Amino acid sequence: MKARIAVLPGDGIGPEVVREALGCLDRIADLGGHTFVCQALPVGGAALDACGDPLPASTLEACLASDAVLLGAVGHPRFDANPNPLKPETGLLRLRAGLGVYANLRPAFVHPMLAGASPLREEIVRGTDMMIVRELAGGLYFAEPRSLTAERGVNTLAYARFEVERIARAAFEAARGRRRRVTSVDKANVLESSQLWRTVVKEVAADYPDVALDHLYVDACAMAIVTRPASFDVILTDNMFGDILSDEASVLTGGLGMLPSASLGGAVALFEPVHGSAPDLAGQDVANPFGAILSAAMLLRHALGLAAEAAALEAAVYDVLASGRGTRDLAVPRATLGTAEAGEAVRAAL
Amino acid sequence: MKARIAVLPGDGIGPEVVREALGCLDRIADLGGHTFVCQALPVGGAALDACGDPLPASTLEACLASDAVLLGAVGHPRFDANPNPLKPETGLLRLRAGLGVYANLRPAFVHPMLAGASPLREEIVRGTDMMIVRELAGGLYFAEPRSLTAERGVNTLAYARFEVERIARAAFEAARGRRRRVTSVDKANVLESSQLWRTVVKEVAADYPDVALDHLYVDACAMAIVTRPASFDVILTDNMFGDILSDEASVLTGGLGMLPSASLGGAVALFEPVHGSAPDLAGQDVANPFGAILSAAMLLRHALGLAAEAAALEAAVYDVLASGRGTRDLAVPRATLGTAEAGEAVRAAL
Ligand SMILES: CC(C)[C@H](C(=O)O)[C@@H](O)C(=O)O
Ligand SMILES: CC(C)[C@H](C(=O)O)[C@@H](O)C(=O)O
Repeated sequence: MKARIAVLPGDGIGPEVVREALGCLDRIADLGGHTFVCQALPVGGAALDACGDPLPASTLEACLASDAVLLGAVGHPRFDANPNPLKPETGLLRLRAGLGVYANLRPAFVHPMLAGASPLREEIVRGTDMMIVRELAGGLYFAEPRSLTAERGVNTLAYARFEVERIARAAFEAARGRRRRVTSVDKANVLESSQLWRTVVKEVAADYPDVALDHLYVDACAMAIVTRPASFDVILTDNMFGDILSDEASVLTGGLGMLPSASLGGAVALFEPVHGSAPDLAGQDVANPFGAILSAAMLLRHALGLAAEAAALEAAVYDVLASGRGTRDLAVPRATLGTAEAGEAVRAAL
Repeated sequence: MKARIAVLPGDGIGPEVVREALGCLDRIADLGGHTFVCQALPVGGAALDACGDPLPASTLEACLASDAVLLGAVGHPRFDANPNPLKPETGLLRLRAGLGVYANLRPAFVHPMLAGASPLREEIVRGTDMMIVRELAGGLYFAEPRSLTAERGVNTLAYARFEVERIARAAFEAARGRRRRVTSVDKANVLESSQLWRTVVKEVAADYPDVALDHLYVDACAMAIVTRPASFDVILTDNMFGDILSDEASVLTGGLGMLPSASLGGAVALFEPVHGSAPDLAGQDVANPFGAILSAAMLLRHALGLAAEAAALEAAVYDVLASGRGTRDLAVPRATLGTAEAGEAVRAAL
């Protein structure tokens, strides 16, 4: 097949890890007789530096004309004092909105090789394999009104029925490909937005009688992710809660740098590792490219329908890990690899 | 001294744990020649059952006429389907608002006896001793507008300068009695309310040159609480983030049932254990009363100015623990005590 992929390296370690992921996509293309036309485009701090806009119109246009978007990471403390419209993160938020993606899938699983690297005791974290389905297009991140004066800062946590309905469906569909359990997380004992959330999720559940549903308050979920992470299958939650809970869950896996994500449901899908831009590590050839490479695997599966190629790429990453090799953030027994070496090891394993 | 204490046992295990805390206050009164006039009042589900209102006017009036309020816990799944005004939790929120308390102090520390009971690996959790200062009177919990229809649920995350200023002062003051470090947690890369928060916290910091200040995004903080809990001193954050992060932190201590909290800054201060009402454990004499007893100690210190008595009560609880005795939720080596036995053990140690 022929596919166009918009590539947005972004800031910090973004360019390094994306380079390795692209190398893997090239190899996949060669092996399978596919053509991936990749176009590199600026976003985030890199775009602010290049043209004073964290998401130049040309970047969004090129993304919308592509079959998928692969992003590295955005953000740098250099821009912390900038007003909102001139922050790198705003580029990412406008990209999500511009693509119309609303379903953010964030798997958090513990590779047997890495259970010992988790901050959790091994007997608690072992077997953890959850999928966090985070609403990505609404809630506190996007709802109006929002404003800032010297005296007052205002955001709005609003959800409309259709927004909850579509993300709930995404979660139930994801559960069907897994262990058929959805835990919906809200704060319905306090927030009206959560009461709508819970009502609509229950309604959608009626269409999925084969999937079990339970509900947790967000504070109880923040505890349960630490005390019984292996008990979760799919966690369904809103934009802000999902931001917090998915980061909490990701760090428990002992391999934050390994985790991919997919943002689906819009005109074009977006794929990015869960880790951030880690500016302090940039340019040192120490960043972990596996999260970016596994994001490329998700891209093959979800955007291009190349399930076999996706599985092969995932298997190659796990082969490298299982051989005891990985970047220095992973507690691997045999060989510590640089970013480029780690990418090359995956390509060799393909 | 003579003091009036309003006692709100609430739901689930609330009455059992409060009974033991009151027993301890009685003993303190006897030993020190104080008179504590305690009046029991309904709140939460208990008040809904008794008079159809989760915070009867008579309860709030009696609290406002007291020197301090000691609460057990509120909440029961029986009321889950109730509309907001008729939920037990609404009673607690109205009580906080009615008392005017805005500074919720939630210590999370790891007792050396309990480090082995933490879900975290011992070398990571050892030495953890943080104080979460949660804004309790504003933000998503209280700001207007808020509404619920079949089509839309709306809440508002708004902060005014004075609200941030007073809670920031509470955090810096708390830090002065500790290790002089404040970590302010927000989502300033996305939310305007957080941008006001960060600006005002920085301004207040200028009055506390002896206290170090840093800032974390809430998602990064959710990770750091798990990966480096011992690195925190005071965490300062808003109402919703504080709800989530304090529960996450509390469960890492290996002794959720031991943790007290104080809500200060209003007409009358409120003290309650961090744990919930745990209806499934109610009436079985298995609940851990130490959180309620340590809340009574905070009451002695913060509301009545009885610092020596507070310290004596805390020491008595830790003596019991150090002797290898505790309730079944604690991984104690010597003797598992029932709720009443645990309270009696503390009184004997006084
Ligand atoms: C960079 C930031 C805007 C973003 C978010 O909050 O969504 C990030 O934390 C994430 O989770 O993808
Ligand atoms: C019971 C509930 C309303 C309350 C809250 O969310 O504040 C509780 O979770 C807490 O943290 O004290």
